[in-house]
Amino acid sequence: MLAAEMASFEAQRYRIYLEDTDAGGIVYHASYVRFTERARTEWLRNLGMQQSETFAHDTSFVVHSMKLRFMRPARLDDIIEVSCDVTKVRAASITFAQEVRVADGGDLCCHADVRVACISLATGRPQKVPPDLLARLA
Amino acid sequence: MLAAEMASFEAQRYRIYLEDTDAGGIVYHASYVRFTERARTEWLRNLGMQQSETFAHDTSFVVHSMKLRFMRPARLDDIIEVSCDVTKVRAASITFAQEVRVADGGDLCCHADVRVACISLATGRPQKVPPDLLARLA
Amino acid sequence: MLAAEMASFEAQRYRIYLEDTDAGGIVYHASYVRFTERARTEWLRNLGMQQSETFAHDTSFVVHSMKLRFMRPARLDDIIEVSCDVTKVRAASITFAQEVRVADGGDLCCHADVRVACISLATGRPQKVPPDLLARLA
Amino acid sequence: MLAAEMASFEAQRYRIYLEDTDAGGIVYHASYVRFTERARTEWLRNLGMQQSETFAHDTSFVVHSMKLRFMRPARLDDIIEVSCDVTKVRAASITFAQEVRVADGGDLCCHADVRVACISLATGRPQKVPPDLLARLA
Repeated sequence: MLAAEMASFEAQRYRIYLEDTDAGGIVYHASYVRFTERARTEWLRNLGMQQSETFAHDTSFVVHSMKLRFMRPARLDDIIEVSCDVTKVRAASITFAQEVRVADGGDLCCHADVRVACISLATGRPQKVPPDLLARLA
Repeated sequence: MLAAEMASFEAQRYRIYLEDTDAGGIVYHASYVRFTERARTEWLRNLGMQQSETFAHDTSFVVHSMKLRFMRPARLDDIIEVSCDVTKVRAASITFAQEVRVADGGDLCCHADVRVACISLATGRPQKVPPDLLARLA
Repeated sequence: MLAAEMASFEAQRYRIYLEDTDAGGIVYHASYVRFTERARTEWLRNLGMQQSETFAHDTSFVVHSMKLRFMRPARLDDIIEVSCDVTKVRAASITFAQEVRVADGGDLCCHADVRVACISLATGRPQKVPPDLLARLA
Repeated sequence: MLAAEMASFEAQRYRIYLEDTDAGGIVYHASYVRFTERARTEWLRNLGMQQSETFAHDTSFVVHSMKLRFMRPARLDDIIEVSCDVTKVRAASITFAQEVRVADGGDLCCHADVRVACISLATGRPQKVPPDLLARLA
């Protein structure tokens, strides 16, 4: 079931707007961090969960750590594709490999390895990934 | 021709991500300013122009002034629709009325009247709206 | 007492970083909206209140409406000064006139008239400006 | 000389504003990436260079890669301190270790290892770190 669901998650497409760029004429590097979070959010939604609901259950997914490698820059008006693949599942965290590419066969812009931890919104302490989600990733 | 082209411009849909929100639990007010710029950029593209190309011809569209009225806030995970209607065309500026709504009949979040001026990228001085564009808006 | 306290509120100084600029080589217009919010936040703090505390009392200050006029752009590495003057006080709202200038006598970049409403965080409904604050503005 | 100059670079202090936070009630993770860039920019300025000038000489410093580890979150109204220490200097890149802390002995929020590459703005190709800067770091 995992394979099927994962296979159904397509890279998300986003347009590069002025807000994403900087005076160097390219996409500002921190913008890629936002783009990877957008894709993880859609990946989660694709599995039937959304952050506003998890908040209501005192659960938040927060970024524990990330490794970013920047290659070729995306530019104004480009469309980018942001992928989201699970590489590791633990009791209280999920690790993703993500790529940001210029759409339709363009340059690879950024590779990100991102570990997301599940925490209690109230205490900030680690807590287990919700069983529903874990079951789908089992 | 104008009416037909204008009619073909649909409100742009965007998802609200964590990046757009603030600690008040709602969309940060300056995010709406970004959303209206996204829709104007797509409106321009719909007429055959994109900013990265106008930059190459020493032409930039910059916001001259704007009036914003904030109504009900959008929230995390909402989809919003951003409209873009031309209300006035002058030699060196175009004025838009724009609305940001929660999609599919949801609340009106923000109304914006935005005057965009055409300037020379090199000098910052006003210059005429490109004739191609003006013709389409005539 | 008002005059003295107001007089003690100096324009806030901020550096322009890459994050504030766009591919047009200047400060992105929505960044000025953020800058005016920073100065209003410091103005409020200068009167003894901070947003994180007002949130705890179910009170939030939200932007009701704003009129922005953009003049000369600020650029990367500039220092800007952001002023914050009260122009009107009502039961449930405060109106400010704000200017963003390049520091030390540089260009006026943006003028903003901003009306901030006091609302209940829980209901989103207007509520009275906290009496402490109102007293200081009386 | 290096030690003296480095010693003269103090951690930069920044206030956390609404713009830096998200609906989870804490600082949005990508904001830390912006904060580390602010501090590197001031570190560079402290050595006599600013980005707007390097751009004029076809030189840009771009982030090549970064490793981020997020610990305790900063919150609205906090003041943070962002450090910037050089850990490696190569012909065409400089590596930094940076920490973001809540000011005056507060929590460590984020640790970042950041490798910045020197490139030609025109071609995007790696180029040598400017000799002036290299001499100061020798």
